[in-house]
Amino acid sequence: MLKLFYNPGSIALASHILLEEIGCDYEAVRLNTAIKEHTKPEYLKINPKGRVPALITDDGILSETPSILVYLAQRFPEKNLVPMDDIFAFAELQAFNSYLCSTVHVNHAHRMRGTRWVDDDEAAIEAMQAKVQSNMEDSYALIEAEMFSGSWVMGDQFTIADIYLFALTQWMEGDNVNIADFPKLEAHRHAMLTRPAVAKIVAEHAG
Amino acid sequence: MLKLFYNPGSIALASHILLEEIGCDYEAVRLNTAIKEHTKPEYLKINPKGRVPALITDDGILSETPSILVYLAQRFPEKNLVPMDDIFAFAELQAFNSYLCSTVHVNHAHRMRGTRWVDDDEAAIEAMQAKVQSNMEDSYALIEAEMFSGSWVMGDQFTIADIYLFALTQWMEGDNVNIADFPKLEAHRHAMLTRPAVAKIVAEHAG
Repeated sequence: MLKLFYNPGSIALASHILLEEIGCDYEAVRLNTAIKEHTKPEYLKINPKGRVPALITDDGILSETPSILVYLAQRFPEKNLVPMDDIFAFAELQAFNSYLCSTVHVNHAHRMRGTRWVDDDEAAIEAMQAKVQSNMEDSYALIEAEMFSGSWVMGDQFTIADIYLFALTQWMEGDNVNIADFPKLEAHRHAMLTRPAVAKIVAEHAG
Repeated sequence: MLKLFYNPGSIALASHILLEEIGCDYEAVRLNTAIKEHTKPEYLKINPKGRVPALITDDGILSETPSILVYLAQRFPEKNLVPMDDIFAFAELQAFNSYLCSTVHVNHAHRMRGTRWVDDDEAAIEAMQAKVQSNMEDSYALIEAEMFSGSWVMGDQFTIADIYLFALTQWMEGDNVNIADFPKLEAHRHAMLTRPAVAKIVAEHAG
């Protein structure tokens, strides 16, 4: 049985939505970050990075959203969530996901997780926070202008890239980005929320 | 014909080494960053992110190192550089590459590229730079302790993960990290440098 560790508000939302979209048997374990459960020895045995998501599979444990999403999509090929039969299309999807994890997510993290990159320096933390909105707007402007092939990220085909993008855009309001400035992204969010699996997991994380 | 855009000192080293390891026909185009060639309109048509690497293929243009490495390995399957026949092993490789791009590379970037995350604030830039050494040491300690299956990242099989790791460890000295503190990584670097393709491209980037 697949077992996902997550906490609400984190990027684990993407892996959680994907499990629900697939409709397979899985268990989702919510970590209590108020008591820093993700940094406790018991969880560090599962993910030594002390981060979510982590996915326990019959083969072993995985972390890192881009890896988990492709793994699950490959495990359930009948769902057609990743174009594994087209090397270049798969590479485009991977480039998109990589931009999300290494640029967009990182830009966002400078608002709440500045202590990853500076020690005990309130002024520096505030300087980072001050640039988050414009960085996120720049990232989303690039996605809006250059990275949409159609109504879904990869064109007509709904894929894991849509789930990943949706999870990130859930942070827009907190980052003071107005989704109405990005019509394609706004339409994308609406399309995602009409999917029962997406609505269900978003509600679970909000509760 | 494959055409790679790179500049010395960048993570494009990984894609360049991989092309040479594969031994396929390719052209490598060095951008002159002294005149900010990577931000000129001509290059932004190739990669609107204004970053390297970018790879022109017969199917289209790719960016993002994790994507380019898997794409090339899939294009030349006879080289056995990515375990596409094992979904979980591929996921482990992808998780490793994802950690490199979204955590290790990002930690490093706070030394030279702090202006990505703060505007005109010399004190904040210096605060970021002050934490780079310890962040990189923490990242490499985790890799050394948890992410090596054998002499190569994935065990007995040399893969694209080794090339990517090697490219990042080339920054250790600049980040004031002593590779001798990480015996597995030091042995890995030596093993990489005995490969003719690696030595050749490292020399090209140094020249």
